[in-house]
Amino acid sequence: MTTTQTTPQVQQWVNLAQQLRVDSIRSTTAAGSGHPTSSMSAADLMAVLMTRYLHYDFDNPQNPNNDDLIFSKGHASPLLYSMYKAAGAISDEELMTLRKFGSRLEGHPTPVLPWVDVATGSLGQGLPIGVGIGLVAKYVDKLPYKVFVLLGDSEMAEGSIWEALDHASHYKLDNVIGILDCNRLGQRGETELGWNTAAYAERAKAFGWNPIVIDGHNYDEIDHAFSHAVEANNGQPTLIIAKTLKGKGVSFLENKEGWHGKALSKEQAEQAIQELGVQGRSRSQVYPVPRPESLQPAPEPEKKPLELPKYNVGDSQATRKAYGDALKALGAANPNVLAVDGEVSNSTYAEEFAKAFPDRFFEQFIAEQQLVSTAVAMSVRHKIPFASTFAAFFTRAYDFIRMAAISRANIRLCGSHAGVSIGEDGPSQMALEDLAMMRAVYGSTVLYPSDANQAAQLVAQMADHNGIVYMRTTREKTPVIYSADETFTIGGSKVVRQSAKDEATIVAAGITLHEALKAYEQLKSQGITVRVIDLYTVKPVDEETLIAAADNAGNKIITVEDHWPEGGLGEAVMEAFSERDGAMPEIVKLAVQSMPGSGTPAELLEEAGISAHHIVQAVRALVRGV
Amino acid sequence: MTTTQTTPQVQQWVNLAQQLRVDSIRSTTAAGSGHPTSSMSAADLMAVLMTRYLHYDFDNPQNPNNDDLIFSKGHASPLLYSMYKAAGAISDEELMTLRKFGSRLEGHPTPVLPWVDVATGSLGQGLPIGVGIGLVAKYVDKLPYKVFVLLGDSEMAEGSIWEALDHASHYKLDNVIGILDCNRLGQRGETELGWNTAAYAERAKAFGWNPIVIDGHNYDEIDHAFSHAVEANNGQPTLIIAKTLKGKGVSFLENKEGWHGKALSKEQAEQAIQELGVQGRSRSQVYPVPRPESLQPAPEPEKKPLELPKYNVGDSQATRKAYGDALKALGAANPNVLAVDGEVSNSTYAEEFAKAFPDRFFEQFIAEQQLVSTAVAMSVRHKIPFASTFAAFFTRAYDFIRMAAISRANIRLCGSHAGVSIGEDGPSQMALEDLAMMRAVYGSTVLYPSDANQAAQLVAQMADHNGIVYMRTTREKTPVIYSADETFTIGGSKVVRQSAKDEATIVAAGITLHEALKAYEQLKSQGITVRVIDLYTVKPVDEETLIAAADNAGNKIITVEDHWPEGGLGEAVMEAFSERDGAMPEIVKLAVQSMPGSGTPAELLEEAGISAHHIVQAVRALVRGV
Repeated sequence: MTTTQTTPQVQQWVNLAQQLRVDSIRSTTAAGSGHPTSSMSAADLMAVLMTRYLHYDFDNPQNPNNDDLIFSKGHASPLLYSMYKAAGAISDEELMTLRKFGSRLEGHPTPVLPWVDVATGSLGQGLPIGVGIGLVAKYVDKLPYKVFVLLGDSEMAEGSIWEALDHASHYKLDNVIGILDCNRLGQRGETELGWNTAAYAERAKAFGWNPIVIDGHNYDEIDHAFSHAVEANNGQPTLIIAKTLKGKGVSFLENKEGWHGKALSKEQAEQAIQELGVQGRSRSQVYPVPRPESLQPAPEPEKKPLELPKYNVGDSQATRKAYGDALKALGAANPNVLAVDGEVSNSTYAEEFAKAFPDRFFEQFIAEQQLVSTAVAMSVRHKIPFASTFAAFFTRAYDFIRMAAISRANIRLCGSHAGVSIGEDGPSQMALEDLAMMRAVYGSTVLYPSDANQAAQLVAQMADHNGIVYMRTTREKTPVIYSADETFTIGGSKVVRQSAKDEATIVAAGITLHEALKAYEQLKSQGITVRVIDLYTVKPVDEETLIAAADNAGNKIITVEDHWPEGGLGEAVMEAFSERDGAMPEIVKLAVQSMPGSGTPAELLEEAGISAHHIVQAVRALVRGV
Repeated sequence: MTTTQTTPQVQQWVNLAQQLRVDSIRSTTAAGSGHPTSSMSAADLMAVLMTRYLHYDFDNPQNPNNDDLIFSKGHASPLLYSMYKAAGAISDEELMTLRKFGSRLEGHPTPVLPWVDVATGSLGQGLPIGVGIGLVAKYVDKLPYKVFVLLGDSEMAEGSIWEALDHASHYKLDNVIGILDCNRLGQRGETELGWNTAAYAERAKAFGWNPIVIDGHNYDEIDHAFSHAVEANNGQPTLIIAKTLKGKGVSFLENKEGWHGKALSKEQAEQAIQELGVQGRSRSQVYPVPRPESLQPAPEPEKKPLELPKYNVGDSQATRKAYGDALKALGAANPNVLAVDGEVSNSTYAEEFAKAFPDRFFEQFIAEQQLVSTAVAMSVRHKIPFASTFAAFFTRAYDFIRMAAISRANIRLCGSHAGVSIGEDGPSQMALEDLAMMRAVYGSTVLYPSDANQAAQLVAQMADHNGIVYMRTTREKTPVIYSADETFTIGGSKVVRQSAKDEATIVAAGITLHEALKAYEQLKSQGITVRVIDLYTVKPVDEETLIAAADNAGNKIITVEDHWPEGGLGEAVMEAFSERDGAMPEIVKLAVQSMPGSGTPAELLEEAGISAHHIVQAVRALVRGV
């Protein structure tokens, strides 16, 4: 240790840091895999943090005054878990279960552990979420807790990191403290910037942060940096840029290539532990972590009864507008509802909420990764976030949505401008893969309303629904077909047309339901009666209604969707039948089969083969063979 | 115009810029939608660029010496198309077809037009691709062409922009020139940084670029900036930061809120055109664009016969290793093959190629959006790019893959570490949605080999295959089951076990094929014979083989995949049957149904319900009811 002090405090830090290193080695060696060296570089930083600057009540992880500590470099989990042991939160025995089947101590941290707020391991995500938490602390909770984020230097190459730096300074989040463990070595060699801490500092400064460059193994410097960071009140977030050595403290690991993500053998571990000089009992010292204050979050206004907007049957309204109207109604009823948008709130209609509740709306600009991260952060702090942008642009944040599911986050996403029916703007703006993308998220719910009253009701239910809930809305105005009194539930569908002599069933949702209804009339005039199902919940799909339709309407189904053929509504319908005994019905899928260009919505629906005209043809071919 | 010169050159720029503005207004008014004001702000910049600095042969868009001009702010397409008209490439008549059905002039530029290399419209993508092209120019083609990228200020909030800035300076791409049209106004109000050009400059400088701040309506300053930029040879890319006025030149549009993405009415258009002072004939002046030099790209070494690696049946090998081995073989045979990787080449085994051909491997660090963008750029310049990272992390770049399909790019992606079978690292590293994500890309091909010899053959075929081709590889070593002489083709599958008395068919791929083979043996010992299909092409799926299997093996199918239930192999199999006449077979899908943690591959396959043991149970239930 290159420190000038030898006070009892410094000695405590030395002891703790060495214990953290030893435990990082012991646990990974026991596991036979993991990241000891990436843990060891940050041990001194974390030793100082946890004994002096982090305020955390391990007995009550839900204490609203707890600081947040996020390991954005999630692969340093052995260090995090060793800190939990040092804090007395887990036993040495549990620490040794690292990476074993059934253990809470997974290869990368997840909220299976009560002290982990968000899953990390996909690099570049911890900081964006930390920034979101800082935003909640400052503007919503109005509590003085801090957010500490441990960053790896490799992940500074991720664009999402720079979205986070940008947003943190825009929102003046001086409660956010990044700790960059600049150990120079990435997975397969030197990182892009190596130990060029000046370059990181210049970049951070240009993005409105206060960079502090230190030797990450010098306790004076570490202590001073944290002390400065937690006192910041000028609106500037702090980035502590710590030059460190990967594998610090062990001669054959320190600053050596070829040791990323490798556990030591038993013999190597013994030698390393001997070098680290921690013997016997002192390996399992418990170090008190400062307790947080006992403040209460800003008092919430009382909840009020929900008064959803109502639309008249026969009028025309876009479901995206109903989203905005309903979100505003929800905001009036429940002060815990927050909204974020990716600088398109006048298109998604999140602006209805933003205008009514400017204090609870946070513009995320055109930075979809940060958009989703902020929503996840709001969920961490028990708010009810709604995030919106064009449906196509949620593809930008798919990794964040995937990780949000692992984080067990409760977030509501609304994507507008779905499918070819948006018309003239062309394919870059058309979501044609969003249903596939969102269905393939663990535990997700996927909604696709076809009518304004239905959309409004579903928005209200989204607020109370757990997990990742996605609503796809339509750009175009469509006829209001349901009265405001009709009820819709997540997981449900609606049989819109039926008779005793139905020969087939058309399953549609959103824009294509209106094409299906036109097709119904044309077919009826030709003497063919079909059932029409509005599959407004695409996941979980309403198996009962679909199976009943197959059983009672000729065992023939036509699905129609404004989406590529893969992974969307059609495949969701098939999924329903793979669960039941016996052969599946005859299913014909209409979906977008060629790359669209620009045109009117009607022209593009026709060209895509999903217009009323194509539905009529498909039904005739299926039931009449012509 | 606030210029000090009144030379003939300046007068030409004035005339051209006004013509571009008028045409941007006329075309959008004719379309009834579009972005005139976002076009007008950049008209002066583009007038100078196209008459003095851009070298482009409009008669031969494939001329390897052509500069690239990318509108990263794709919504300014009216300006781009007006430039095409001014260059004599399209007629005024065609310009007036903007956004109409069947027109090449889509709402946002796509390569339907021969002068557009990549589709834009999802903000923040033009620059990363431009940087990739700069890399090809400098290190592969070794030609002096330049890359000009017009950027909007709103899109500077996208993290991908900063990945691009970072990579451009890392690779010393002084041939890349960004032009930031800083018009202050985004879609719904002021951008994050407004006219704070100094902030942009500071950030660009910190990222290693040379920023030049100018008045974007002052021809002297524009001219000087471009002149400086094209002469740069110090390894620094240039960012021209132009303060501009949205709607410049028309009193009721200039710097006014509420005009984003709105066409003018006929009356407004007439008034605007009058203000712009361009009358009659002069509206359709043609301005010569400088021609490029006639140099040849660096000569390619000759192609050699391909010698793929061979693996012995019964040995164990990971398909990811076969990917690396085959890529190296491909590199030896074809000098046009290039590779990029997201700083995990020692895991994806792209390092085999990197070590053998360091001049054709370009490290992209942990920046997956840039990784895919660079591959797209290589495709633009007719190379054969392979891009690899962990399969899970391609979710980070989904928007870029989606747009690559609209760009008609030919790129090959390889994602390693798929599914729960990766074991101890936990869910953040497990791709469980990649098949769904990649299937739902227009025109994509999805491969999932189960054996090293098969993987090697498919890698070779990827090189010759168009569109977005994705290969999913497995982390674990699995038995080599096919001899090196057996043939496999994209679009095919392999019947691995069959008999005349098969009672059902198991369809699997990758890791689960080996579980299926174990299940086959157990079932056989229990007197149940099943067919086993290796569905190594997940898209397009081999309908013929699947339908034959259903017909000849009891019309019962069990699919098994190391993937969420949605959108993957199981749904691909169902898809096959939705195309044929008649009812579908009875299909049971085994897939990952709960959130995995850490554990050994075997433990996690078992817990996920996709192990041999679960397959045996599912088959027994299906064919025996027990």
